[in-house]
Amino acid sequence: MPSTPAKHALRILNVALKAADPAEAVSRHVRLDRETLIAGRQRYSLKKFRNVYVAGAGKAAGAMALAIQGILGNRITSGFINVKSASTKGLRRFVVMECGHPIPDSNGERGARGIAQIAQDAGPDDLIVCLISGGASALMPLPAPPVTLEQKRATTQLLLDCGADIHEINCIRKHISLVKGGQLARLAYPATVLTLILSDVIGDDLDAIGSGPTVPDRSTFADARAILKKYGIENRVPGDVRERLNVNGPETPKPGDRIFKRVQNLIVGSNRLAVDAAVKEARSLGYHTMVLSTFIEGETRDVARVHAAIAKEVRAAGRPVKPPACVISGGETTVTIRGKGLGGRNQEFALAAAIDIAGLKNILILSAGTDGIDGPTDAAGAFADGSTLARAKAAGMDATKFLADNDSYHFFERLGNLIKTGPTGTNVADIRLLLIG
Amino acid sequence: MPSTPAKHALRILNVALKAADPAEAVSRHVRLDRETLIAGRQRYSLKKFRNVYVAGAGKAAGAMALAIQGILGNRITSGFINVKSASTKGLRRFVVMECGHPIPDSNGERGARGIAQIAQDAGPDDLIVCLISGGASALMPLPAPPVTLEQKRATTQLLLDCGADIHEINCIRKHISLVKGGQLARLAYPATVLTLILSDVIGDDLDAIGSGPTVPDRSTFADARAILKKYGIENRVPGDVRERLNVNGPETPKPGDRIFKRVQNLIVGSNRLAVDAAVKEARSLGYHTMVLSTFIEGETRDVARVHAAIAKEVRAAGRPVKPPACVISGGETTVTIRGKGLGGRNQEFALAAAIDIAGLKNILILSAGTDGIDGPTDAAGAFADGSTLARAKAAGMDATKFLADNDSYHFFERLGNLIKTGPTGTNVADIRLLLIG
Repeated sequence: MPSTPAKHALRILNVALKAADPAEAVSRHVRLDRETLIAGRQRYSLKKFRNVYVAGAGKAAGAMALAIQGILGNRITSGFINVKSASTKGLRRFVVMECGHPIPDSNGERGARGIAQIAQDAGPDDLIVCLISGGASALMPLPAPPVTLEQKRATTQLLLDCGADIHEINCIRKHISLVKGGQLARLAYPATVLTLILSDVIGDDLDAIGSGPTVPDRSTFADARAILKKYGIENRVPGDVRERLNVNGPETPKPGDRIFKRVQNLIVGSNRLAVDAAVKEARSLGYHTMVLSTFIEGETRDVARVHAAIAKEVRAAGRPVKPPACVISGGETTVTIRGKGLGGRNQEFALAAAIDIAGLKNILILSAGTDGIDGPTDAAGAFADGSTLARAKAAGMDATKFLADNDSYHFFERLGNLIKTGPTGTNVADIRLLLIG
Repeated sequence: MPSTPAKHALRILNVALKAADPAEAVSRHVRLDRETLIAGRQRYSLKKFRNVYVAGAGKAAGAMALAIQGILGNRITSGFINVKSASTKGLRRFVVMECGHPIPDSNGERGARGIAQIAQDAGPDDLIVCLISGGASALMPLPAPPVTLEQKRATTQLLLDCGADIHEINCIRKHISLVKGGQLARLAYPATVLTLILSDVIGDDLDAIGSGPTVPDRSTFADARAILKKYGIENRVPGDVRERLNVNGPETPKPGDRIFKRVQNLIVGSNRLAVDAAVKEARSLGYHTMVLSTFIEGETRDVARVHAAIAKEVRAAGRPVKPPACVISGGETTVTIRGKGLGGRNQEFALAAAIDIAGLKNILILSAGTDGIDGPTDAAGAFADGSTLARAKAAGMDATKFLADNDSYHFFERLGNLIKTGPTGTNVADIRLLLIG
């Protein structure tokens, strides 16, 4: 039976998870008012549209499609989505492609071609509701000729091997693709496009989520070539990739391009929105809230120590927020695995924090992955408080040793402090909560 | 010529350093109003005292003694301080012992004996002003017979080797000493004691600073024996230490002991007070301020990433504090050295942060050690902003490589972004500043 702070923390977490649920996320941001579809700050009068197409890709595309079908019903002309695994029972008038992920396959390419076709065929009187979520980049591959899917894969691998960062990889990807980097929006023009985005990218850079198929792209062919040169791989990428990057155009559509006047990119789910939902719930429970950051990155155990240090400051000096306080952070940390134990970044976070707050009263720390799958475990995360280390000791466990062995799962399993949600079907990174009484 | 944010950051840092300066710290918290010494919440009518003794130890004891002499002048009967190096020109009626640190020596023991003698000789009509600062534990060693200084040293080393934490080491130390753990206050009783403390301990645990010679001690002989047992070293510590710990008393004075009615322990300088001074200055410059924590610990580069993440959140969402914002943190991080470069934890902090904020406008990050000596360098720290990486690149430097090589000094030296204060004679850990415009 969890104590009140633990109950509160779990309740706040659940509200955050609900906000990140793909169907909930769509339903909260899109609604039908008679014949008007209201999404974000725009209103789409359905009477004006001859056809309403739904198209998209991503691990959550199925759930998002079901939600949009729940709203638009028979007003949907047809739909086409690329998913990782088909949990799309109940979809009508939809083509659902089950595609390879994280390594793109020919199914993905066929699906991408189908989606591109819808976009190209749509006219000025048509509306395309695009659905983009995590994994869309791999699930919707459409290499620009003469590049083949296999060459695209090889290029990505080469870039990874030479240490290119995600922005650099995306720049190359966009310029050897026919849909990424805003090119799907260009295909759709002059149709109207409403893209609903479930963001799995820290900071919600629109052009990074699924490589931004309906988002203006600032990068150029020249940038792409410069990246190859930077890593000295101009002559190691497949010849067709080199050839494609040398054509120098047509450039991906840039910010300000008139095609984007008919495009709205709307984030319906994200780490930020989940954190905001958590804030609201924590407030309703009577906590003073503070969002530390939704950009948190770094080695888990040290990030945990900073969180513990903040909890200590709240206790000692009533700052940066007065108790009863709920400090919330998002983003995603990493674990450098040195041991042989079982765990995940969220469970390890709770374990490292537990060590720092040992013996302190009125502090509860929770960390959970919004996908419900923390590392190779069946837990989403764990929670700990000032009594955790003493309870562990009483159970014959040395927290420091479990941490050194990256064995957070067994540590919290024995204490009954794992959080198990099951796979949630969404992924907007992690949520961490500090409750300080 | 530093930009305005850099100027502001350096100005805020300077104010924090000033608050941590030993002489300033004493002068700000102690003043003479005619015949009354006002310190903290207490007033000491000097007319009531026959003698005013000054006694103490620590790396800043010399500067603190000069400051208290500046306030009390000829009212000081005599003084006795143990210091690491004698920069005590101008002290009158003081015995100044230059003692070994961090390894205690016989000078330290002779000095400690002298200080204990003053305490013991003082009567109900006497006031002892005690001065405690970092290093006091090593600089004022007075082993309890039959333990010798050499045995005490060996015991500390044994505890360090078997991984005992600082609280455990302090517990043992207090029980094989005649002055630590409140015992100096007991010797002084029934004299009045005012202890001025310059804290170098994160969290300002009074009983940890210099092992708390005038502070109640909660630990017991039984605790000390349990620690030896925990690490299985009961039979490896010198026989005399074992014998001493078996005498079972007299116990160190506990909280509530009447002797503490005549004792005031007053922190005059600390990381917290330096941070508070920084807050005040930042406000006067027009910044919204937030103290993240004064308890910050952990691996420097990951702590830096969390700070960078907070700066990003301020920029992106105006939280946890609205811009123009000044986020301040204290405490002390650690660096796991893997490279062969030159640097310190504060310079490495600035370097790691610089990588995360590369290209972002209106963020400045600074980190500096209050002792003015960051690692084995002549710098106190460094500062960085969103342009740092680009400037480094233009100078032919790859920030990631410098970080991997722990070579932050050469990185910032080339950019002219080192902070050099020279040794400050104080140590209240580190100060970090984020300015977000």
